[in-house]
Amino acid sequence: MSDKPATSWKATVLTLFPAMFPGALGMSLLGKALDKELWSLEVRDIRGHGLGKHRTVDDTPAGGGPGMVMRADVAAAAIDAVERVGRPLIYLTPRGVPLTQARVKALAEGPGAVLLCGRFEGLDERVIAARNVEEVSIGDFVLAGGEIAAQALIEATVRLLPGVLGDAASPAEESFSVGLLEYPQFTRPQSFEGRDIPQVLTNGNHREITKWRHAEAERLTRVRRPDLWTLYEKDKG
Amino acid sequence: MSDKPATSWKATVLTLFPAMFPGALGMSLLGKALDKELWSLEVRDIRGHGLGKHRTVDDTPAGGGPGMVMRADVAAAAIDAVERVGRPLIYLTPRGVPLTQARVKALAEGPGAVLLCGRFEGLDERVIAARNVEEVSIGDFVLAGGEIAAQALIEATVRLLPGVLGDAASPAEESFSVGLLEYPQFTRPQSFEGRDIPQVLTNGNHREITKWRHAEAERLTRVRRPDLWTLYEKDKG
Repeated sequence: MSDKPATSWKATVLTLFPAMFPGALGMSLLGKALDKELWSLEVRDIRGHGLGKHRTVDDTPAGGGPGMVMRADVAAAAIDAVERVGRPLIYLTPRGVPLTQARVKALAEGPGAVLLCGRFEGLDERVIAARNVEEVSIGDFVLAGGEIAAQALIEATVRLLPGVLGDAASPAEESFSVGLLEYPQFTRPQSFEGRDIPQVLTNGNHREITKWRHAEAERLTRVRRPDLWTLYEKDKG
Repeated sequence: MSDKPATSWKATVLTLFPAMFPGALGMSLLGKALDKELWSLEVRDIRGHGLGKHRTVDDTPAGGGPGMVMRADVAAAAIDAVERVGRPLIYLTPRGVPLTQARVKALAEGPGAVLLCGRFEGLDERVIAARNVEEVSIGDFVLAGGEIAAQALIEATVRLLPGVLGDAASPAEESFSVGLLEYPQFTRPQSFEGRDIPQVLTNGNHREITKWRHAEAERLTRVRRPDLWTLYEKDKG
């Protein structure tokens, strides 16, 4: 007798800083969707699986070098305590495969994701192989830990779930939906510091508007993202 | 008479959701560095520059389409109220130039950054031109807003500031520092579920270790990131 969907998309986060969640995910559209149980968030403290009196989770790198490495046995225990039921296990790391909108869409169509957040110098490589961990990177830069990357992945995915965005936006026309960056947007006022809204957008000819927007999306992609442009041209050809 | 540096790196965030900050940035190493005033965070509510009784910040897109667009005059007023003093003005958007570790390093060497976070369908294009806004993307996926992207940029940058990481990690050997992904890491125990630490890492021959790590970093980059591998080979040649 409730509006709650029979099953909802579930994120489980394994972290040493559970207080970082839900963070930004608890507000705005994502927060409202969380309240409506359109998705759910489970946060597990890796330290609960730490060893000994001090709940140790890390040790020095084999072969030397600075920093500390998260132990394979501790990470494996944290992973094994989660009920995955078909959800992929993702480790956020700059060494991972770059996250794309296509991967985000596939995740949104599944039951959820289990996200392992690293800290320190990294995670013992053996747990990655032993637990079939998917290594994902949100970009070619290095964070202090995986928590903000996990939040980015969750936000990108959850906004695609039915009912989350409502009429507030349009996943169909946005960047990457057809392999192009999004066309420029304009709104009132008609004139801003001597700059007018392009005339084509104000004459009500929808065919012309669509044509102009597509040409602008192509132009921007070609200039700013030659890598995406090459893929786009290949797909068209 | 204090330990506080004479000038410290400053992030100013322009957002419709100021409560999203500091979020994850207020904890762990970044939070400690914030307490020590190694960096500072100023959060400004764009809605304070909204129009009329309802503090309106957005309007429907010129030319039609779903969603709402942030007004150029409102965004410009929010931008103009900030003392930039040499700090770049960055708008987080999937249409932007991809953020790289090189850009992060350059930002860390400067006085800080002013970060404009969008929501809705986008920002009126005219303010981007009129205020010389740098459009930056953290990855090829779409978020519900710029806030988590801004947190990623801030965390990546602040961790490079003097005194923030301490001995906890080594920016010199991590992913992207020489154009390669980072080599695999291992730590105790010696054997995990029948998998041993590679012998080369345990024999104490530092020259062999360095060679092995470099070869592994090259192998991983070649297999997983042919795009980075091409750039790396070009730089070497």
